[in-house]
This record gives sequence, C-alpha cells and structure tokens, in this order.
Amino acid sequence: MSIADAGGPGSLPSQTNVAPALAAAFETLRVRQEGAVLFAEIAAPPMNLLGPPLVRDLVSLIQQAETDESLKVLVFRSADPDYFIPHVDVTKIKEYREEAAKLVGEPSIGLLFRHLSASRLVSIAQIEGRVRAAGSEFVLACDMRFAARGSAIFSQPEPAFGLVPGGGGAQHLVRLMGRARALEVMLSAQDYDAELAERYGWINRALPASALGDFVKSLAHRIAKFPASGLIAVKKRANAIALAPVEDFRRDSDLFGKGSSKPEPQRRFADALKRGFQTRAGEMDLARLLGELDDN
Amino acid sequence: MSIADAGGPGSLPSQTNVAPALAAAFETLRVRQEGAVLFAEIAAPPMNLLGPPLVRDLVSLIQQAETDESLKVLVFRSADPDYFIPHVDVTKIKEYREEAAKLVGEPSIGLLFRHLSASRLVSIAQIEGRVRAAGSEFVLACDMRFAARGSAIFSQPEPAFGLVPGGGGAQHLVRLMGRARALEVMLSAQDYDAELAERYGWINRALPASALGDFVKSLAHRIAKFPASGLIAVKKRANAIALAPVEDFRRDSDLFGKGSSKPEPQRRFADALKRGFQTRAGEMDLARLLGELDDN
Amino acid sequence: MSIADAGGPGSLPSQTNVAPALAAAFETLRVRQEGAVLFAEIAAPPMNLLGPPLVRDLVSLIQQAETDESLKVLVFRSADPDYFIPHVDVTKIKEYREEAAKLVGEPSIGLLFRHLSASRLVSIAQIEGRVRAAGSEFVLACDMRFAARGSAIFSQPEPAFGLVPGGGGAQHLVRLMGRARALEVMLSAQDYDAELAERYGWINRALPASALGDFVKSLAHRIAKFPASGLIAVKKRANAIALAPVEDFRRDSDLFGKGSSKPEPQRRFADALKRGFQTRAGEMDLARLLGELDDN
Repeated sequence: MSIADAGGPGSLPSQTNVAPALAAAFETLRVRQEGAVLFAEIAAPPMNLLGPPLVRDLVSLIQQAETDESLKVLVFRSADPDYFIPHVDVTKIKEYREEAAKLVGEPSIGLLFRHLSASRLVSIAQIEGRVRAAGSEFVLACDMRFAARGSAIFSQPEPAFGLVPGGGGAQHLVRLMGRARALEVMLSAQDYDAELAERYGWINRALPASALGDFVKSLAHRIAKFPASGLIAVKKRANAIALAPVEDFRRDSDLFGKGSSKPEPQRRFADALKRGFQTRAGEMDLARLLGELDDN
Repeated sequence: MSIADAGGPGSLPSQTNVAPALAAAFETLRVRQEGAVLFAEIAAPPMNLLGPPLVRDLVSLIQQAETDESLKVLVFRSADPDYFIPHVDVTKIKEYREEAAKLVGEPSIGLLFRHLSASRLVSIAQIEGRVRAAGSEFVLACDMRFAARGSAIFSQPEPAFGLVPGGGGAQHLVRLMGRARALEVMLSAQDYDAELAERYGWINRALPASALGDFVKSLAHRIAKFPASGLIAVKKRANAIALAPVEDFRRDSDLFGKGSSKPEPQRRFADALKRGFQTRAGEMDLARLLGELDDN
Repeated sequence: MSIADAGGPGSLPSQTNVAPALAAAFETLRVRQEGAVLFAEIAAPPMNLLGPPLVRDLVSLIQQAETDESLKVLVFRSADPDYFIPHVDVTKIKEYREEAAKLVGEPSIGLLFRHLSASRLVSIAQIEGRVRAAGSEFVLACDMRFAARGSAIFSQPEPAFGLVPGGGGAQHLVRLMGRARALEVMLSAQDYDAELAERYGWINRALPASALGDFVKSLAHRIAKFPASGLIAVKKRANAIALAPVEDFRRDSDLFGKGSSKPEPQRRFADALKRGFQTRAGEMDLARLLGELDDN
C-alpha cells in the first residue's frame, strides 16, 4: 500500500505522487503526498492523546520522510476539530517514551521533538482544537505553526501537577515570548486562545478558521519549490541560534520523567482523572478542572 | 504585631491568615496575607521614590517571605495611583545601595532585584502609575507584570543623564523586546503607555484599570494552589535560559554607581532637580522635562 | 565642498551646520547635518540596488561620521518612494564585497553592517518602499527602524535562490522574532507589509506615512541632546547581549559568497533576471516572481 492510500477521506489521488518509500500504513496518521509536501493528519480517537501508538507512528513517519529525497515539507494537522494533541497519556508514560527511544536512542519525547526541529525537513503545524502540554511542545518543535481563531487553544500546564514541561516547552516558550510571559503561561496552567497565543509569540499567526487550510497548503507548496540546499542551510543557521542544546531537552525530560512518578504528581493525576482528565468532555475546559484540583 | 495588622485600609482580616514569621511592621509597605499569597502595597509618600526606607523594607519583606513556608506568591502594587515607583532617590544613592547590601552582600539594587527573580517565590507586579528607571527595573525583576491601561507609564531614561540603567534594565529589556526596541526605549528616554509597553513585551499584558486588581488576585491565588515543587522547578529552568548572569547585573550596577558621581550626570541631576525632578508635579510629564535639560 | 552642500533638493542650509570633516561628496547619498544628527538619503537610481557605488559611499560615510565628534546620530532614508534598498546587485557580488573590505578588512557586507551596529553612532532607519535581502539586513543593522504603513515592504528571500542571507539577516531575525517566525520569513521568501513586520518585531514600529518623517526627526534630535557617554555605554551593553559575534556574521557571509557562485543559485539568478529581477517594474511584486522561478 502506498502512502497515498494510507490516508483516510482527505486523500486526493489525482494530485498525489505515490511514494513507495513511505508505504507504511499508520494506525493514527492519515498521510497524503502532494509533490514535495507530505500532509499528515492526526487521527487517534477518541481525542488524539499522545500515547504509544501515536508516538510510534510519528517515529515511523519522521524516519521514512527523512529518507525520502522527494520530500521537503511536512504539514501536521488534526482529524479532530476539538483536539489537535491534548497531551500525553499519563497512564502510559513509560510505554510512549520507549517508542521515542526507537528514533533517538533515549526514552524522551523531548529529544524526539528536537529531532524534528533539527531535521532537514521543514515542518508546519496547522492547528485547530486543543494543544496542551506535549501537544503544545509538538507544535513548538515544528518550524512554523498557524492556528485557527475561535478554535485553537493553547496551554502548558505541567506545574498544575507539580511538574516541569518535559518535551521542551520551557526551552521554546522562554525563547519565543520571554521570561515573564513564559512563566505566566506555565505557572498559571491557563488556556490561551489563538489571538493571545499570537500576541505572545507562541504561534506565528492566528488566522480565520476558514482560511487556515488554504494558507498553510499554499505556504507549504511555495517553500517546497525552493532548493533543498537553501532550506537546510537556513534551518541550520537558525537552529544554531535558537534551538536549545540536547542537554537542556534531556534535562527537562528527566525532570518530568522522574517527577511524574513521585507521590504528589501521582496524587494529582489521580484526582484529575476522577474529574474527567483524559476524556473529551472533561478536557473541553481543562483550565477550570486544573484550578479545582485538591491542593492538599 | 502580625503582618495582617501591619497593613493599611486595604487589609481584610476575615480572609487573612496571620503569619507570625512575617510579623515586622514596615515603614513603606502595607502587607496582607491571603492564604499562600502575600500582597505588598508600596506606600512611601510623597511619590514612592526608591530611597533607603523602601529598599530597607523590600529587603526585610523578601527575607521574611522567603523563610515563611506558608507563602508561595508575592504581589506588589502601589498605594499611589500616579506613582508605582518613579526611580531611585538620586540624592541618596550611597545610602539605598547599602540597604540592598544587607540581603545580597553588595551595595547593588540590581543584585537585590535579581535575588527576587531567582527566589523560590513567584512575584507579580500590578502596575498603576509611573514605573521609570529603577521602578521599571523592579517590575522587570518580578516574574510577571500586568498594567492598567490609561494609568501605567513606563520609562528607562538613564541615558538622559549620561548613564546606563543600573538595576538590570538593559539585561531584561534587550532580552524581552530585542535590541532595536530596547535601544529605542533607553536612548529616547521617552514615556511609554501600557498598550505600547505590551506590544514591546515590557509587560505581560495591559488590562482595563477596572479589571486589573481582580485579574491579578485571581491569577495569584490560582498559582498558589499548585505544588511549590513545580513552581520552583519551572522558575529554575526559565532562569537558566533568560535571567542574565550575576556578573552582568553587577557590571551594570557598577557602571551606574561610578558613573552617577561624575560631573556630567551630577550636573544633569542638579539641572533636573531645579526643574521639578523628584517632585510629584514635576514628574507627571518627566519625558518633557528630560528633553529640556541643558545639553551643554 | 561641505557635507551640507553635498546633498540634493532636501538640504536646508539655514538649519545646517557645516561639517568640514564630512566634506566628501557622495555619488549615491545626499547628506545633511542638523546639529548632531546626520541625515543620509539613499539616491542610487534606478532602484537603489546595493552595488559597488552605494557600498563605497556607505563605507565613506560611516568612516567620516565616526571621526566627526560633532555627530551622534545617523538617519538613513530613501530618495525613492518605492525602493529603500531592494537587495545587492547580484551581477557584481565580488565588486561590492571588495568595497566593504575597505572598512572592515574582509570582503563582507555582513561585517560592514555589523560595524555600523557596533559603532558609537546611533543609527535610525526611516523606511519607505522595499527593503529586501541586503536591504532588510541594512535596516536590521541600524539601531532602530521605523516604517511607513502602506509603503514599506520587507522580505528576506535568499532561500528562493538556494542561499542563506549573507549580511546578518538570520542573526538578527531569529533573535528579534524567534525561530518560528524567522524561519517562516526566510523560507517563504514572501513580502511582509509594515504592520506585520511590526507584529513580528522586524521593525520598532509602523507609522502613518505622513507622520514618519517628523517622528524620526524628533526622535533623532532628542537622542542627540543626551550625553554621548551614555549613548555609547548603553549600546555596548545591548550589543554584548544581542549583537551576534563577528564569527557568525563571517560564517553567514561566507555561506552566501561561496553559495552564490554555485550552479543552482546562478541558474536561479539567471532565470529571475529574465523575469524582471533587478528592474523597477519586475520587483514591485518580487514575491510573485520568486514563486514562479523554475524549480528544476
């Protein structure tokens, strides 16, 4: 089966080049190639939690796309209008981290995400719905991110559980929006809409939901027309300035990994799960849920 | 006397936890504790100049609050609607610096302010009125800052006297708003309103004056519900990225301290004082006053 | 001939101090001194390309202005309402680079621009018309930049030719607007208007075209009234934080210089020239032209 066929309802065979090297079917991704652009739609019901299957598929997608010389640009979007990636599955931390290790040699999604930032491929996140915690960190790892007004919601709420962001959130947010706004975002564990996320520099731009898809598609194809050598060289120069060192990603990853098994975060995870955490309904207004967690 | 009683008209005994460790009365601060949040209102008439009494009280407040395990968040606001902190008392530079040395071991308010940024406590500035020079540097040292539209005014005007900001202003502004805007702000010695301060990243957000107090109170209490361990860990990670090293604060502090006793700054201080500098009326439009200083 | 006389129609002898040290006439610059402010208007018909004559004049201007103790502030503007500086003359890369070497000892306009940023002089760009590629890099090297709404257009499009920006564009843009927006700007090779350039931090502020000239003039004269010692000291402190090291400018310059002679960029330059590149008409909508370049 080709990558063109691996997709769901969104695939457009007439515009599609078959990429034999990208022939794997994915459990949680619908992929479609148009020229040098690969569109990957996240479809991991019921709410696109970043658990072992989605991490396994992201590893596989990145590995295959990087070795496919016909590809220059990766676009990520969601099949679920309410959830892009809400966060990791907190009941399977050990398992999803082991999936990440298959690409980066260490059980760390922070290092997996950093691998994407350092990749020769240009990555663009087209955001509708909620990106919180590792979801925020995934889009922060993409080279660019554009979000739908009235739909996209952003949060980096690990401190509500007594934890630091483990996937590079602090590294990106502090560099993008400065110390004060990054501390506000993380320490408040609040939800931010697309407009405020744009003002804070969390995303490149907030766009009308009706225009977002065409904007991203057009941008992706434009970039894909330019020589690969220049794209790669510019990414290298930008990363040398603004992509945090591996050691910092590893340190955050370790702090989250070790911290998450301690009594206080475990107690708060359990309390949250009782209140609807990791359910579609319960996370529509996660900020409120987090504010109601028992603080004793 | 308890900290609850040390406050002025704003104290609300019914919501207040008495904190025996914070029992000192302050000459220039009205403090009130609500749960894990300590509200400190600056009340140093006639205009909240940062002179020896206010520095002494800030040192004392920070020392006591840091050792009080019941506290997580400090909120600073002003009892004076026109002045939050206008700047240091330029007639008492040696004296206020010596007060700072009692906490940080060196006569430098830059190092005092940096101590606050590095503290385990989360600090929030609720800004109405003027924050200029060291006033700006104090709110920049807070972890977050929110300002009232139509009321708050910002300035970092030391170059008008031939000096660099001595309390970390350059360190924070360049990192928050980039080289060009930080140079504009400092070299122009102009006043900036809350909207422009927000666009430049000087503050987290500008809010309607009527909404500011409730917003900050709600944010402070929300953060205070989260585990201390996470708040501390996130601050550490953010500071490792974006808080300038001690040596840079010390260097700026030395440049200001040595520079301020030289003939040109002394002459310009004297000229400014004759024109109303360090008076409530004279500093309502300080930007104009600075533009009129004799440039010979 | 004095610098006052070297100017064109914009010179105002009645307000002008003659500066004997700045006596050179320029081929592509009209200069006028008002007190401690030197206004330099770029007038290099037909479209202000950065070729050998303009680089030679900029070298000469900077050299002379730096040694003239009566000057504190340099203001750059354009005599052409459509073009400030569009980019380098790609048919004379070797030649213009050799002009830069006369000031900085190495054939690199990146190092020339960095010299301006590190100069004791405060530089302000007043931008109407197009600043693309090296034009963008020139205004990024100025200490501040203000642009006319509805007129100014920004672009950093070297990747459309398979190249990295050679004059420090990546160094400045990544630090000013963060990794994601800088990558978008460079990899898309798109045009950005003044409003979006302001939101992204590319410029200090977008102003109504009718107000821009007075705003910049007033700001320049205000800064020029302040003691030189403070201006210099503040620039030094800001540069220590946010001006990229010489090695990084040199590296970008080398990547551009060596890259530009390779087959793929040469082929794309040739294709672009056939389509109107380096002509007034052809570059009114350069973004479209770049998107139409043959990608084989």
